[in-house]
Amino acid sequence: MRVLGVDPGLTRCGVGIVEGEPGRTCRLIVGGVIRTDPGTELAERLLAIEGKLTALLTKYEPDAVAVERVFSQHNVSTVIGTAQASGVAMLAGARRGLPVTTYTPSEVKAAVTGYGDADKNQVTTMVTRLLRLTEAPRPADAADAIALAICHVWRGGTKARLTGGTQNTTRTGVRQ
Amino acid sequence: MRVLGVDPGLTRCGVGIVEGEPGRTCRLIVGGVIRTDPGTELAERLLAIEGKLTALLTKYEPDAVAVERVFSQHNVSTVIGTAQASGVAMLAGARRGLPVTTYTPSEVKAAVTGYGDADKNQVTTMVTRLLRLTEAPRPADAADAIALAICHVWRGGTKARLTGGTQNTTRTGVRQ
Repeated sequence: MRVLGVDPGLTRCGVGIVEGEPGRTCRLIVGGVIRTDPGTELAERLLAIEGKLTALLTKYEPDAVAVERVFSQHNVSTVIGTAQASGVAMLAGARRGLPVTTYTPSEVKAAVTGYGDADKNQVTTMVTRLLRLTEAPRPADAADAIALAICHVWRGGTKARLTGGTQNTTRTGVRQ
Repeated sequence: MRVLGVDPGLTRCGVGIVEGEPGRTCRLIVGGVIRTDPGTELAERLLAIEGKLTALLTKYEPDAVAVERVFSQHNVSTVIGTAQASGVAMLAGARRGLPVTTYTPSEVKAAVTGYGDADKNQVTTMVTRLLRLTEAPRPADAADAIALAICHVWRGGTKARLTGGTQNTTRTGVRQ
């Protein structure tokens, strides 16, 4: 199973693709960050993030997408942009027909460190160890995205199976 | 000038297209709401909203998109979904190369009622009057979206001209 993890953000959007099976060592395919210029118009930034995510989906063909869930308790000054970036990430996955699952930071931390309140350094350390990398993924947003992907692999896409397959049940209607 | 106004929301996303010139009476092309089922997976709801918005852009070919700006002070229980829907709306406009402008609720209210603290009923009343409609647009989300479009027409797309044309300046990069 190959999973794209996304740690959403407007200025830095972490991305990581890993491959593996539940309970087995995962293999890192690619990790990094998508950056957009805070001086650029918001719609163009979202378009740039979507374009880069779509390019990753096309190139690496993951089976699923895991996105960090955004809460209104997040940093107030950035929460709206983070939510918008997360919406674009979910949309990019759904448009390709992939199951999209969201995980809370606690769920991800618990999956990779065994402890839901682990700090960023612990997550980076464990990601490095779990993937048997010689160097830690940088910046932290990339490590967080990779951790999301590992979390989803290890949970065997369970959430995705439970909540997926609803493609045809969304009702929409524009009334004139 | 033809403008699509979007009052973003996950369960009810208001949409309205008007045509007009600054200082002249606007003409309503279409107004309504895009509804998605709260019981459906989030990514699928965003995909449905994007699909319906894209269909409107294709059918009515507006020159610009105006989206209500989302603040973290919004209703805490729905702000994340509202922000995600707004991100999808901005993306849908930007993908078609249209200028996308955001307006605060106060700016829209001031534009159509002359008073930035006007209530929803006043906005609906003025939208009905300004467009010379025989019946008020329902629900309120549709009226709000139409008000956004009127606001943008009357401001002559000024904001769009000031902030637009930056399509090629967004920098992105995925580091491996």
